[in-house]
Amino acid sequence: MRITIWNEYVHEKQNPAVARHYPEGIHTVLAEALRKHLGPSVSVRTATLEHPEHGLPQSVLDETDVLVWWGHQAHDHVSDEVVERVAKRVLDGMGLVPLHSAHLSRPFVRLMGTSCMLRWREADEKERIWVVNPSHPITEGIDGEFFEIEREEMYGEFFDIPPPEELIFISWFQGGEVFRSGCTFRRGKGKIFYFRPGHETYPTYHHPMVQRI
Amino acid sequence: MRITIWNEYVHEKQNPAVARHYPEGIHTVLAEALRKHLGPSVSVRTATLEHPEHGLPQSVLDETDVLVWWGHQAHDHVSDEVVERVAKRVLDGMGLVPLHSAHLSRPFVRLMGTSCMLRWREADEKERIWVVNPSHPITEGIDGEFFEIEREEMYGEFFDIPPPEELIFISWFQGGEVFRSGCTFRRGKGKIFYFRPGHETYPTYHHPMVQRI
Amino acid sequence: MRITIWNEYVHEKQNPAVARHYPEGIHTVLAEALRKHLGPSVSVRTATLEHPEHGLPQSVLDETDVLVWWGHQAHDHVSDEVVERVAKRVLDGMGLVPLHSAHLSRPFVRLMGTSCMLRWREADEKERIWVVNPSHPITEGIDGEFFEIEREEMYGEFFDIPPPEELIFISWFQGGEVFRSGCTFRRGKGKIFYFRPGHETYPTYHHPMVQRI
Amino acid sequence: MRITIWNEYVHEKQNPAVARHYPEGIHTVLAEALRKHLGPSVSVRTATLEHPEHGLPQSVLDETDVLVWWGHQAHDHVSDEVVERVAKRVLDGMGLVPLHSAHLSRPFVRLMGTSCMLRWREADEKERIWVVNPSHPITEGIDGEFFEIEREEMYGEFFDIPPPEELIFISWFQGGEVFRSGCTFRRGKGKIFYFRPGHETYPTYHHPMVQRI
Repeated sequence: MRITIWNEYVHEKQNPAVARHYPEGIHTVLAEALRKHLGPSVSVRTATLEHPEHGLPQSVLDETDVLVWWGHQAHDHVSDEVVERVAKRVLDGMGLVPLHSAHLSRPFVRLMGTSCMLRWREADEKERIWVVNPSHPITEGIDGEFFEIEREEMYGEFFDIPPPEELIFISWFQGGEVFRSGCTFRRGKGKIFYFRPGHETYPTYHHPMVQRI
Repeated sequence: MRITIWNEYVHEKQNPAVARHYPEGIHTVLAEALRKHLGPSVSVRTATLEHPEHGLPQSVLDETDVLVWWGHQAHDHVSDEVVERVAKRVLDGMGLVPLHSAHLSRPFVRLMGTSCMLRWREADEKERIWVVNPSHPITEGIDGEFFEIEREEMYGEFFDIPPPEELIFISWFQGGEVFRSGCTFRRGKGKIFYFRPGHETYPTYHHPMVQRI
Repeated sequence: MRITIWNEYVHEKQNPAVARHYPEGIHTVLAEALRKHLGPSVSVRTATLEHPEHGLPQSVLDETDVLVWWGHQAHDHVSDEVVERVAKRVLDGMGLVPLHSAHLSRPFVRLMGTSCMLRWREADEKERIWVVNPSHPITEGIDGEFFEIEREEMYGEFFDIPPPEELIFISWFQGGEVFRSGCTFRRGKGKIFYFRPGHETYPTYHHPMVQRI
Repeated sequence: MRITIWNEYVHEKQNPAVARHYPEGIHTVLAEALRKHLGPSVSVRTATLEHPEHGLPQSVLDETDVLVWWGHQAHDHVSDEVVERVAKRVLDGMGLVPLHSAHLSRPFVRLMGTSCMLRWREADEKERIWVVNPSHPITEGIDGEFFEIEREEMYGEFFDIPPPEELIFISWFQGGEVFRSGCTFRRGKGKIFYFRPGHETYPTYHHPMVQRI
């Protein structure tokens, strides 16, 4: 399996608070975690916004089985051409894993057809992620019926996505919200897994969950 | 539309705390609420466990378009014959609306094929019910994105039901749980709507939500 | 209920074979059928490509509860602005009913996020439309388990749409194909019902099926 | 992975026409095919109706990851106890693959909660099985958009099952019917894959399709 991790890589260079957790970028931490967890049977590469064609020319996509996407403040800087190229590659069979604020990334919104908006709040609150589909391979390796993240940004419903084919996780937030945090979609020959956590919180991306495809 | 409300009607006669809210039984309050909300275009009747055939002979089911079901401590006293009769009538087109603890009622479990177990706690805690399917007719008349019940029994995931065809509500509980609180299922020619709230809490059953079919 | 029927209205003016069935356009026949079947409780208006803003300015969409769409050869002549306006109005609660070749209409493709391609053949063959969701209101009024259209254009799988939330009809074609002919999707606060039949065949659009919302 | 293949093993001993194709039982042919296709990483065992507890004591189920089930004329001879044991083991995580006429097998009906009836005809007709979910792992290894079986028994809609979570195959039959031929369901922690073909037709069970889990 060939994985490409895409990160806009902007926050890390502008905000010392983010750089502290991710001095070399979220993509680097994610790549290391995936290599460690998945072993030598997978090859992992990274790409960022600043590269030519954002590091995603057709040749790279053609050699990618799963594309992981992290983006936030620079969604609009991703070019029409790359958005369309990624969407077509998904329909042709590539997996796509948008993380956290990538709910508004252009390839995901393009493939969903909805606004993909949600409610949010930065309040350092506790998140509890409940498993509601225990037969799904994504949930393998989770001990117990939920897991917790001590301090996260809140994402709440209504999350304007098409009804997911499979709902895997529902998050509970201390402040009173719930969120469909793990959702799968099939589009064409490709699969999409949206996974919520990941706001500048290092340990989040070390969780075995990310061992999915 | 012809609605029949079934109630085991046991708690009310044994427990003064319940009788205070429902002196003439939960079914009576539900029937009045439905008559008030839905007007003269619907006919509402009630039936309870103690009646012959639990008040549900074939003739009554044949004249019922929607059967509302409230049960809790006496699930096992419902006879095999009535369970099978209700299930067959649903497959033949009748609607079924199991409320609250009717998640373990025998007709519902029979139609789901799973254990229908969940986790629960009586702790007088706040429940917030979020709408996650705002295009669904059941959500008509709800102002805002959620509504609250100040004190309810907690029901939490994992709720062992088949993945619902439509997920309408997700509940948030103060103590840290989430729950799929409004779920629809199609079985044969019939529809089923499971709706969570309703533990000895009078106002719950005055909510316009129950105007669904 | 306020219904707007949109038709590109091009074939009818260019092709005498089409004009014979629809001298005043498919939209006129559809409008008459809907008025006849649904009675005075609905208001029906029509709009076509050649009108300013294709007859779909914001004011018309704001007063439309359900938009029926028929298009084929002129999909690309529908402006970006109108496509976006229709899509946003659906997410805000309007119903959309794309008919037949409108599987490639720009608003539908925009909302699905997939290619919406399929296989097809014009061979005057028999189509049998089977009901696979008999509890759905769309199927009310259908006698028996299927209905037939003596001569239709064939549409076959793979139909590249997201898995529909509800699959209502599956078509059988004489030549060896099957097709998911009636599919519902929820997007934002709106609902979409794709319905396959309708290739220049007058009686198709007199069928009670179209009584759905 | 540990697979157990269950066969009622009655037809083969009573009907020479069946015995010709399956002299040692359908289970033996299936077991050989699975061993050949899946290699030494799986262990395959078989069980039949005539064994004590039908060959399915708790100890065997506990050591089974996937249970394949073929039954037809002797459904009613499977004991209540074994039905309940199999159903509970599925809810606890075992996979279940009912084949062909096992749509009426007691464990499947118990888990579905519906009648699982369908229409059928023995007419030696051609079946074409179309892939409608090309991103699903079950479809891996299928060349093209469909595959054909020259002579099969017809199964047609309406198939009274709950709406499947994933619809993988739709069959076309020469005589005018369609059928949802490959359907997945999640129940508890287990998965179920119903697969239609398999009426006394040897080559059917040599198809790579059966390589799924």
